[in-house]
Amino acid sequence: MTDRIEFFFEFSSPYGYLASERIEAIAARHQRETLWRPYLLGIIMKTSERRPLYTYPLIGEYSAHDIARCARYWRIPFAEPSKFPISTLAAARAYYAIEANDQVAAQTLAQALYRAYFRDDRDISDTDTVLTIAAEQGHQRAGLEASIQSEPIKQRLREATDEALARKVAGSPFMFVDGEPFWGCDRLDHIDAWLERGGW
Amino acid sequence: MTDRIEFFFEFSSPYGYLASERIEAIAARHQRETLWRPYLLGIIMKTSERRPLYTYPLIGEYSAHDIARCARYWRIPFAEPSKFPISTLAAARAYYAIEANDQVAAQTLAQALYRAYFRDDRDISDTDTVLTIAAEQGHQRAGLEASIQSEPIKQRLREATDEALARKVAGSPFMFVDGEPFWGCDRLDHIDAWLERGGW
Repeated sequence: MTDRIEFFFEFSSPYGYLASERIEAIAARHQRETLWRPYLLGIIMKTSERRPLYTYPLIGEYSAHDIARCARYWRIPFAEPSKFPISTLAAARAYYAIEANDQVAAQTLAQALYRAYFRDDRDISDTDTVLTIAAEQGHQRAGLEASIQSEPIKQRLREATDEALARKVAGSPFMFVDGEPFWGCDRLDHIDAWLERGGW
Repeated sequence: MTDRIEFFFEFSSPYGYLASERIEAIAARHQRETLWRPYLLGIIMKTSERRPLYTYPLIGEYSAHDIARCARYWRIPFAEPSKFPISTLAAARAYYAIEANDQVAAQTLAQALYRAYFRDDRDISDTDTVLTIAAEQGHQRAGLEASIQSEPIKQRLREATDEALARKVAGSPFMFVDGEPFWGCDRLDHIDAWLERGGW
């Protein structure tokens, strides 16, 4: 058990992006740190026997409307990406490659990747785009490229996804506060209250 | 377009029950009235190609935990019913039977039915139980029983469910505020802000 707020997310999850823009302020309000944990949602989807939201009749249309409205509600810049969903292997591996040496830099990179995709419509499924964004953050392109393709980093991402599954992460975003599970960007309000009240 | 907040719900939906306990205070805060619209979620589920939450791996377990925690968060009495889910034909028909003459009484009955099921573990799939609860509210048992079984009332419920489908109601609870759709008990917070700000 850690007193960090654990933040599991998938890089192509719009609600995950919205949560990424809200979670730090909530954590800071309660003197908590966060631990960001990108993982591959596809495996969770398969285990929980469902498909991406946008593929369901009724739900797909509603959720697109809700995502854009939630972004405006929380005043978070958001533009629907032209390519959606995408593979986020390169983005998630880049996160763990940087995190091996510098967790703060990894989180900064994750935020930059999320913004690139959900604000600036940059295709972060493309390894070259991920490397360019990392270079903009001051990371060495060649070293990161090698690291992303290395077996230990591939394995690191598999472990993170396995951990999500083992801990019953049901979707993205999914947070743990002192072991208590919260699913969805809207549950950040409950986390805020949970930390305020010391649970309930 | 109506300035009433339209509240679509299914009587066996736990999040619908939680919303029913919250929506009146939020409406009153903004000098709005509500229009309760029970419907049959099964048809919406089928159209949107999904199953009840509790049947999905990962999601089922999480949602049971979340529902109980949400109830405590909003300080709403809640006890998981021993029989779940149930057919809510009798409950929903009873609502429309009463509503034909008295909308306020129908809403009071709906609240009593929801509480009977989600607080007192009474099986409201049973017509006799529904009639007993209605009698506790001062309704004439024999007249209501005949009405529930009448073709116009059966038709009225079909129309309500058809209307939900036509208006792209994706689940329960589902609210419309001046035509704007909101899905989920947590979206009542957004409705509160929507009415406060006049949209966004």
